[in-house]
Amino acid sequence: MAISSLHATTSLHSPCTTNASFRQNQIIFFTTRSNRRGGTRHGGARTFQVSCSVDKPVVIGLAADSGCGKSTFMRRLTSVFGGAAEPPKGGNPDSNTLISDTTTVICLDDYHSLDRTGRKEKGVTALDPRANDFDLMYEQVKAIKEGKAIDKPIYNHVTGLLDPPELIQPPKIFVIEGLHPMFDERVRDLLDFSIYLDISDEVKFAWKIQRDMAERGHSLESIKASIEARKPDFDAFIDPQKQYADAVIEVLPTQLIPDDNEGKVLRVKLIMKEGVKNFNPVYLFDEGSSITWVPCGRKLTCSYPGIKFSYGPDTYFGHEVSVLEMDGQFDRLDELIYVESHLSNLSTKFYGEVTQQMLKHADFPGSNNGTGLFQTIIGLKIRDLYEQIVAERAGAPTEAAKV
Amino acid sequence: MAISSLHATTSLHSPCTTNASFRQNQIIFFTTRSNRRGGTRHGGARTFQVSCSVDKPVVIGLAADSGCGKSTFMRRLTSVFGGAAEPPKGGNPDSNTLISDTTTVICLDDYHSLDRTGRKEKGVTALDPRANDFDLMYEQVKAIKEGKAIDKPIYNHVTGLLDPPELIQPPKIFVIEGLHPMFDERVRDLLDFSIYLDISDEVKFAWKIQRDMAERGHSLESIKASIEARKPDFDAFIDPQKQYADAVIEVLPTQLIPDDNEGKVLRVKLIMKEGVKNFNPVYLFDEGSSITWVPCGRKLTCSYPGIKFSYGPDTYFGHEVSVLEMDGQFDRLDELIYVESHLSNLSTKFYGEVTQQMLKHADFPGSNNGTGLFQTIIGLKIRDLYEQIVAERAGAPTEAAKV
Repeated sequence: MAISSLHATTSLHSPCTTNASFRQNQIIFFTTRSNRRGGTRHGGARTFQVSCSVDKPVVIGLAADSGCGKSTFMRRLTSVFGGAAEPPKGGNPDSNTLISDTTTVICLDDYHSLDRTGRKEKGVTALDPRANDFDLMYEQVKAIKEGKAIDKPIYNHVTGLLDPPELIQPPKIFVIEGLHPMFDERVRDLLDFSIYLDISDEVKFAWKIQRDMAERGHSLESIKASIEARKPDFDAFIDPQKQYADAVIEVLPTQLIPDDNEGKVLRVKLIMKEGVKNFNPVYLFDEGSSITWVPCGRKLTCSYPGIKFSYGPDTYFGHEVSVLEMDGQFDRLDELIYVESHLSNLSTKFYGEVTQQMLKHADFPGSNNGTGLFQTIIGLKIRDLYEQIVAERAGAPTEAAKV
Repeated sequence: MAISSLHATTSLHSPCTTNASFRQNQIIFFTTRSNRRGGTRHGGARTFQVSCSVDKPVVIGLAADSGCGKSTFMRRLTSVFGGAAEPPKGGNPDSNTLISDTTTVICLDDYHSLDRTGRKEKGVTALDPRANDFDLMYEQVKAIKEGKAIDKPIYNHVTGLLDPPELIQPPKIFVIEGLHPMFDERVRDLLDFSIYLDISDEVKFAWKIQRDMAERGHSLESIKASIEARKPDFDAFIDPQKQYADAVIEVLPTQLIPDDNEGKVLRVKLIMKEGVKNFNPVYLFDEGSSITWVPCGRKLTCSYPGIKFSYGPDTYFGHEVSVLEMDGQFDRLDELIYVESHLSNLSTKFYGEVTQQMLKHADFPGSNNGTGLFQTIIGLKIRDLYEQIVAERAGAPTEAAKV
């Protein structure tokens, strides 16, 4: 049984303040439970370090199925804060972690309690909660949130094994991304903001066809079989998390092309929960009304099939939400800046910041459609949320410059 | 053969300037042709008076079928300029003319060359050009436009006879309303702005049912028969004029109530031609884009079936147009001011002027729907057009205050 111990290392000479919750938990022991559940875990007890930070991290959860653009999303998010996200220096080359000046993104696959062999033996998928260690996930996210460093396991996607843990210092913004960030109520309650990337079955299928059939030579039958095999656990354990998300990015087939099943032109919805602290939903033209907008006309000439935006209030799992939808794709920069100029509550710091971010990463997947646009917007909203929380903690009224 | 003569009566002591076109036409003779076409006309040669006006009238044409809200429209128009419109003082009590400080509205039925008996004898309807004297119409509209008074015939709707003419002085704004303001090319060319009120067959039928069956006790069969009888001439002579209109108000059944045929809730389109001098189409949110807007939501709570606006570019008889559509009706003032605040290019002089005008005449038909709203807007656009023309003539750049 592996035990990880936590030590308070805050020096008296440190400029940092300690906090009450930290004092109550100067030493935290927790169990990885890797043995109990039959998985293997390399490395045993390790010493945790407490980071010297005035601010405790803001914790963000991002849920999505494997291979659904989470890493692109994370690169867009870290880009909003400036600086590139890179794996921890000198560590395991198969680490799933990305670190930038402000953000640290960890992959929740690292909390697999069963490795590939273990899952095969028990007949459970990685989607199954029984293949994941939620106690450890909770304890480590909680520690980070309290400003303490953690010794996080690594699930090696190449070998399918659990590698020795890596040390993670509490950053300004801590993102947990993966299959189950909102599955466990305790972890969920630690999140300052949560996002669910909801890729519709049709689009998922079209993407898999594109990647696995065209690029990897898999058969259509095997792709269908792999999707079908995954579906029951996905529906049981992953999909229900979206009801808890503060923002959902829903990716659907276009409605601009009749009977389209290519999955190249996308209709993307940004579903934003109302009443979330430090989060003001983006709106189009008139807050709270229902609007459709085809910006292609006299001022913009969009190529087929054009672009269509929709905006309006709705309910989502019983919550009041605002929904912004983009169907179609951008051909050129002027379309993007034109669209940006008509959206409000974007939390940009200057006019055109969304467009600038999108252009900066024009090579990222989805840069010409709603996935890239909405990921960028969510990145700006998270920056805004972070700044509001910091300002709040400093006891000062928020005066973040917003456009 | 009745001959009307025109005399220059401008006094040397008059403060008015005369104009070149007037000098070239100091005496105009024209023929009413009433005898030739078999109609009767009371009164013979009369002396025309030339009005003392620096500005020649701006001439507006309004086309519509009989009983389709033209008079309400005219009352809304004159109200925009202030002051009430009244029949000429001390004249024929059956005069069709309405005069206010700035506007004079004449009914083109006054140019019927055949009276009711004459039409019956010849077997033509009032819609038939053969029952109307376009030469006289042209000459008199032209005279008015040149700043000369006219001696206009009166068609008595009560007796069905042609009464003795009435003297009409050139006003600031001269409106010719009736069945054929854009039928004759010469008359059409005299118009500074033209409007066509286009009531769909379904709505016309519903209105007639309401009025003639419910209020006058006609049978459904007789109403259907009267509509059918009118239709061929209407389609041949009235309807084609809409292709020439600068603005068309189209009244259609609602699409908010499935299979509605009551004609109480209306969908009204304001079709505005692009590139018309001194006329900038109204737009919603974003000029030139295609937009739908349901203002009922978090800020406004509209009762069933709600309100839906649409806006966008389109083509109409080969012309580029902007179309603003309102489906549904207002319940309360706050809905109206909210809508007004989101429309641009309204040519109002202060915030809320549209709402103020609508409230002032809340008892007029259509005050809670798109007919009243768009009539009011057209009234403001005509005021704007008039002011631009006056400013242009004065050689000064237009600086009309616009909201």
